Amino acid sequence: MKVMNYIDVPPETIEEGARGVQIRWIITEEMGAKNFVMRHFEISPEGYTPLHSHDWEHEVFILNGNGIIVGDGAEKPFGQGDVIFVTGNELHQFKNSGDKTLSLLCLIPSKERCNL
Amino acid sequence: MKVMNYIDVPPETIEEGARGVQIRWIITEEMGAKNFVMRHFEISPEGYTPLHSHDWEHEVFILNGNGIIVGDGAEKPFGQGDVIFVTGNELHQFKNSGDKTLSLLCLIPSKERCNL
Repeated sequence: MKVMNYIDVPPETIEEGARGVQIRWIITEEMGAKNFVMRHFEISPEGYTPLHSHDWEHEVFILNGNGIIVGDGAEKPFGQGDVIFVTGNELHQFKNSGDKTLSLLCLIPSKERCNL
Repeated sequence: MKVMNYIDVPPETIEEGARGVQIRWIITEEMGAKNFVMRHFEISPEGYTPLHSHDWEHEVFILNGNGIIVGDGAEKPFGQGDVIFVTGNELHQFKNSGDKTLSLLCLIPSKERCNL
């Protein structure tokens, strides 16, 4: 078993179509996670991820902060303790709507490794 | 997309081999999660999950509290913000070692649905 703190994983900046977004890949295929991988995101106030879709799902848990998820003609607010399930091929964008850093976990299937 | 709070999912009590453990299945196969599912655990002070192993992995994020993970001849302490990866067939048990509720996320592959 492996125990570590997420903060000890070096963050990477998401550039394309995003603003103020950092990602940490905290449980990875390289570590042996053959089915799904865990990432931690920090989104600054006024920051957002790209508005996009892809054929894999997102399983998200909100650790801190407040935001809005934008979809196809819909927006839903979320906050600490909220859980979000985005299905494959669903348009989505995460926006920080608060005045502090938005911190969340976002898991995706393995072998679908991408920046978001 | 689906947005909800984990606290709104009714908890179930884990009985066999456990003490003071409640589980919430927060993202499930029934919801469309075909690859992996998300569960939330609360473990009371002095509580623990069974010492066991199975052929699927655990991906864990510690939300609150302090605990110890017991493995095959090893114990490792953990706390808030820690990430734990337990590989398939690895002996493991989560124990609350603090004086407040231990709260964590534990994800497993879909189609391996079980109580722990």
